[in-house]
Amino acid sequence: MKKLVLLRHGESTWNKENRFTGWTDVPLSEKGIEEAREAGRLLREGGYVFDIAFTSMLKRAIKTLWIVLEEMDRMWIPVLQSWRLNERHYGALQGLNKSESTAQLGEEQVQLWRRSYDVPPPALDWDDPRHPRHDPKYAGLHPWDLPATECLKDTLERFTPYAQEKIGPAIRAGKRVLLVAHGNTLRGLIKYADRIPDEEIAELNIPTGVPLVYELEDDMQPIRRYYLGDEEAAKKSAQSVANQLKKE
Amino acid sequence: MKKLVLLRHGESTWNKENRFTGWTDVPLSEKGIEEAREAGRLLREGGYVFDIAFTSMLKRAIKTLWIVLEEMDRMWIPVLQSWRLNERHYGALQGLNKSESTAQLGEEQVQLWRRSYDVPPPALDWDDPRHPRHDPKYAGLHPWDLPATECLKDTLERFTPYAQEKIGPAIRAGKRVLLVAHGNTLRGLIKYADRIPDEEIAELNIPTGVPLVYELEDDMQPIRRYYLGDEEAAKKSAQSVANQLKKE
Repeated sequence: MKKLVLLRHGESTWNKENRFTGWTDVPLSEKGIEEAREAGRLLREGGYVFDIAFTSMLKRAIKTLWIVLEEMDRMWIPVLQSWRLNERHYGALQGLNKSESTAQLGEEQVQLWRRSYDVPPPALDWDDPRHPRHDPKYAGLHPWDLPATECLKDTLERFTPYAQEKIGPAIRAGKRVLLVAHGNTLRGLIKYADRIPDEEIAELNIPTGVPLVYELEDDMQPIRRYYLGDEEAAKKSAQSVANQLKKE
Repeated sequence: MKKLVLLRHGESTWNKENRFTGWTDVPLSEKGIEEAREAGRLLREGGYVFDIAFTSMLKRAIKTLWIVLEEMDRMWIPVLQSWRLNERHYGALQGLNKSESTAQLGEEQVQLWRRSYDVPPPALDWDDPRHPRHDPKYAGLHPWDLPATECLKDTLERFTPYAQEKIGPAIRAGKRVLLVAHGNTLRGLIKYADRIPDEEIAELNIPTGVPLVYELEDDMQPIRRYYLGDEEAAKKSAQSVANQLKKE
């Protein structure tokens, strides 16, 4: 049997302020740092060991991973970062407060952008300073290949080649893999692994900072998935993420 | 012109206790964490930017690098770790207090092991639990290839292939390189770059946590090297490292 551990980064300062984050590179909040430490502690106490870790180009995921590796005394394993593991790009919604945008644009419209599988929010203009082509992180990529908005389907499509070419082969080669990523990239992976239909996947909420273990057959067929630690706490945390849309 | 920046990790808990550390994987002290932050600040304020970073498998170097990258807002660059960048292996001296070992073994003998180019201290036994073959970090290597003691010459010989095959090519390809390593691996690099004779290199002291900039011609010939920040402070810090042998 093989195991793969997924971890959504700890709470960021914008999760806390209830703003659409996407590719905006905001740091962890104090609570997020604490969540990451707790995740590392749970993994260490559960006897988990990793040979390689994958994460995104965004500091809230990288910092979560670093804290976990320090807590597990495993700082020396290879860490591979990729833009393909970044959070879903939220287009022109990035930076808006979720409650405000609901009030201004209508709950139905915002809900559609958030929860539909294939309707992207309005794109960032090519000349918008927030367009990822201006960010040195992505200087190695052709600017046309960088998203200015994404629906969940788009996120999955850019994530999939990386899962196929890097993460999958590492697991098949017997490496114990930790993947620290974002709500929507992890949704994508779970959708793929558990064949969740398009119309259901958006309802799946993944709590921040709680390790999610996948057990896989040797041929990579998923057997089951479960959260480490207090299952009740994990459910509650996922619920609080789902509630962010509600007007305050 | 090309630039390469070298950085010796911040003070570790064993630097502080004045013990021979070598491959013992001890963490940074509070002062070491502060030194790393200051190094990151100096580099950021000096306008330095890095595309790739190299470091050892030891947490005092990795943590120093992470702190620097966080301070520079550059956490997403690739980081490559290698055992070839580890500190000199100090054999059976590892763990001994420097003043005590001088008192017990004689200042002349300890000085010879510390400062000669090619006389290694007594080796760790093959069955000693401190032998690196027991450490999961090095599980990918043949145990015979792991050092149980080293003189500075040995350290240089295992460091050199990595410099030739990984670090050199990155610089030649135009990448801006940060190397965070240890007193003796950095000595080795400086010896090579500045053609310092065998009998002089041991006298060269490198302060912890002070960025050392190498300017290189496009053909990689060194032009000059200098410490960032307060040159006087850098000299003093190097002096305090040199003084550790003195009996307290």
